[in-house]
This record gives sequence, structure tokens and C-alpha cells, in this order.
Amino acid sequence: MTAIDRRAATLLALLAPLAVGEARAQTPKPAPMAPPANHAMPSDMGRGDGVRWMGDEEIAMLMYPGMTVMDLIGPQSMFGSMMGAKVRLVAKTLDPVTSDAGVTIIPHATFETCPRDLTVLFAPGGTAGTLAAAQDTATLAFMADRGARAKYVTSVCSGSLILGAAGLLKGYRATSHWSCRDALAGFGAIPTDARVVHDRNRVTGAGVTSGLDFGLAMVAELRDRTYAECCQLVSEYDPHPPFNAGSLATAPPEVKKPMVELLAEFTKKAEALARRS
Amino acid sequence: MTAIDRRAATLLALLAPLAVGEARAQTPKPAPMAPPANHAMPSDMGRGDGVRWMGDEEIAMLMYPGMTVMDLIGPQSMFGSMMGAKVRLVAKTLDPVTSDAGVTIIPHATFETCPRDLTVLFAPGGTAGTLAAAQDTATLAFMADRGARAKYVTSVCSGSLILGAAGLLKGYRATSHWSCRDALAGFGAIPTDARVVHDRNRVTGAGVTSGLDFGLAMVAELRDRTYAECCQLVSEYDPHPPFNAGSLATAPPEVKKPMVELLAEFTKKAEALARRS
Repeated sequence: MTAIDRRAATLLALLAPLAVGEARAQTPKPAPMAPPANHAMPSDMGRGDGVRWMGDEEIAMLMYPGMTVMDLIGPQSMFGSMMGAKVRLVAKTLDPVTSDAGVTIIPHATFETCPRDLTVLFAPGGTAGTLAAAQDTATLAFMADRGARAKYVTSVCSGSLILGAAGLLKGYRATSHWSCRDALAGFGAIPTDARVVHDRNRVTGAGVTSGLDFGLAMVAELRDRTYAECCQLVSEYDPHPPFNAGSLATAPPEVKKPMVELLAEFTKKAEALARRS
Repeated sequence: MTAIDRRAATLLALLAPLAVGEARAQTPKPAPMAPPANHAMPSDMGRGDGVRWMGDEEIAMLMYPGMTVMDLIGPQSMFGSMMGAKVRLVAKTLDPVTSDAGVTIIPHATFETCPRDLTVLFAPGGTAGTLAAAQDTATLAFMADRGARAKYVTSVCSGSLILGAAGLLKGYRATSHWSCRDALAGFGAIPTDARVVHDRNRVTGAGVTSGLDFGLAMVAELRDRTYAECCQLVSEYDPHPPFNAGSLATAPPEVKKPMVELLAEFTKKAEALARRS
């Protein structure tokens, strides 16, 4: 074999789970043929030098009734490509959890069985369900406990309300869905208008679909840029939105006005919740 | 109330389920306070004139073991915002279905209980699981039967292999994940390099994350542009990928080469499958 053939063969063996995933057992396990953690590629890999192709991250993604499932699956699709990482969907019990749009997912672990020391703790958003989760004693106790020790404390969309309610955003810059970003100030956070906000070990994404940008940023943080770029190519993340209405800055007035009004009640409730915290 | 207040109040009532979703029963139902189907907004709505705020689409989204869950959830998150539409996740049985990255979802309906006449038939992609589904007799019989009468026959990512294997792409322009787009020729389709390809009533998306662009295009097709723009703003789809590696045209060589090699075996198997069909 030439050096290039060897490199290709190594990559094929290392990255196989990224592309040729098999249905896994309910509790995710690292790839069985995993090389040791922190395995680095040969030095002829160019920008891939020192890429952490294999890891052992413990990632816990909160689920609760009424969550927005896209908030969860965008990041999960990126985390799920990290070989060796254990990505667990965690809920209060092992009962199936139904999203705001009627998708029902079976959790991998409960608040009790979730590992105590996490690499990443993550919360997805929603509307009514998120306000309920952000006032639920067991959920807040779980988030506060794991968040106190997790290497990264993270969220997408209004999931940052749950982080805030658990006392995890005091003094941190953070973002959220546009409808409740300013409410974060009530938790002592510094609301920040950006797609992904990284302040020390807090990483928060904006609304719903920002989970893809957040997920790629996290893979680059946890592994390296080349690994994240491989995830981006495999998931063909080359967005071409057919319209330009994805932010308050670009949406036409006849779209922005009714949507701001539509979410005004949620905005008010989020602000009240944050002030009470 | 002024005309503007009335318009806002009407919009609030009409669009509420879009934002304030409650956990629904397992079989999705139209919003209980729904105005009649094809309800149009008042004529002072500007570009919203004639928007179909309420509809009665029957949407069936195929699930199978080893599917890529992001292929499913991107479009589902857009379809799920269409008030009055019934969005069903359909599988061979009601047993939970586990994705390639270990997400387990409970189906709403089986091949037998899925409505016979659909507005949209949809197939998500994957790798090994997709090749298996594209050779499964019951799956192909279901797709061919519903596809023969559906108003739109659609897919994201390698889901187009399942459409092709069911005989639904003969003579149609279509796309797929970059790793198996050319294979579509074996089914008699015309492989087309675009994010979303619309040929008569066939609408196919490129790899994984194209499901968001596909979903918005479908909402605009089924309802109208303003409705789709509202979905885009609520899901804050204003993508900012941190890297520029999302397509074969933009990925750096050191990312493109190993990923093409990684998927070469899948590419070969997809081509062989298509040639046999």
C-alpha cells in the first residue's frame, strides 16, 4: 500500500460509523473497534494533523413534553457523528416524550441513570412545554447538578430559559430564540444577538435551526475543525433557504409583525419567569 | 378595533398552533378551533392575500430502521407548522424505529393504517438502512401504491433511492445525497445537481440538511410564500455555517477526499441496486 492508500484505509476504518451507521442499542455505545481516545492521524494529514477522530465524550440532551424536536435533532445529528462519544437523550422517566409537533421519542436515560460527570449538558427549546420544564423542580435540580460539573453547558432556542431558571447563566453572555432572548436578562445573563454565543463554557444557539450551526461549532470545539468539516460535508450542510425571512432583520414587515404578535404572550411569560427566578 | 388590530387578532387565533404547540395525541389531529379549509385572510393582508392559513393535507413520512433522523425531522418541522395538516410518521409496524444515530421514534401509523390518498408521500435517507428499505418488498409495495395517487412524491437525501426502487422516478429529474445522486440514473431518473429539484409532482432534496430548504419549498407549494416565510422566521432559519465545507464544490480537498472514499462502498451499492431495478 502507498502512504495515501494507507491513509484512506485508516480513515475508512476510523470514520465508518459516521456514514454507515447501524441501528444501535438503546443506550449508545462507543464504536467497538475504537482506537484509544485522543488518537491522532498520521502527520501527513495536512490540516487534519492531530484531529481527535476518536473520543469518549459523555453528552446528555434533555427531553421534555412539548419540546421542539428540531432543536434536539439538529445538534444530535452532529454529536451523533462523533466516534466514541456517548450521546444520551435524557428525560424524567423512560416514558416516551412527545414534542410540540407530535413526534414521540424514547429516552435513553433518566435523571437518575444519566452519568454524573458530563462533557456536554444540552437543553432544547419550545414554548409552553419549555416554560413548564423551566418551572419543574426535578428538571431544574437535574440541570443544576449536572451543569455544575459539565465541561460545557449548552442550549438551542428557548432551551436557554431552562439553563437560566436552573441558575446556570448568571453573568454569562447567552442567546435564545428571538422571542425570548431579552428575557434572559431576568436570570442575570447578558442577552446577546448572535447565531451561536460562546462565553467560557456556556454555548447557546439562537432559534430552532441554529442547532446545526451550534452542533458544528461544538464538534469543532470537542474534536477539531477538520472533523467538523467532515460532518458538514456528510450532512451536506450547504444551506439555500428559498426565502430570506429567517431573522427579524430580514423578514418582510407583513411576516415579522404577525409573528412577533403571535409570540407576544410567550415573550411575556418568559420575561415573568425570568424575573421570578 | 382598527383594521390592523383585527388582522392581528385573526392571525393570533389562526397561527397559534404554529408557536404554542401542545403535546398532541399520537395520531396528529387538525387544530380543534380550525376555521374551514382553504380559509383566506382578509384582502388587506398585502402579500398574504389568499394565503391558505388552514389546510387539510394528508402527509405520510416513511420511517425505517437505520434512517437518518435529521432527514426526517427537517421537513417534519416545516410540515408540522401547517395548521390543519395531518403529518403521520409511517412504518411497517407500530414498533419503535431506531435511526442510524440511535434515536428511537414511535410511528403514528402502519402501511395498512396510513390513508390511501395522500397529499404528500415522503422518504428520508440513510446508508445501510436505506439500501435495505429499498429492497424490502412491503416497503416498496407501500411506496408504489401511495405514490401512484399522491399529489406529491418526495424525498430528502438518499430517500430518493427508495422512490427509484419503487419505480416512482422513471423519466423524472431528481436529486439525492452527493454520494448516490448519479446512481438515480439506474432507475431511469435524470440525476440533477440542485438543493431541491421539482419536476412535475416529484420534489427531491439533496443530502440530510437540505430537508429544511425542501420543507420550506413544500410549505410554499402547499400553502403560499407568506406562510412559508412565517415558518422560516419562527424556526429562525437564517443559517450561518461556521465553515464552508457543505458541498463537494466547497469542501477543502483534505475533507472531500476521505469523505468520498468513506462513502465509496455505499455509492457502489446504490449503483448496483439501481441497475438491478
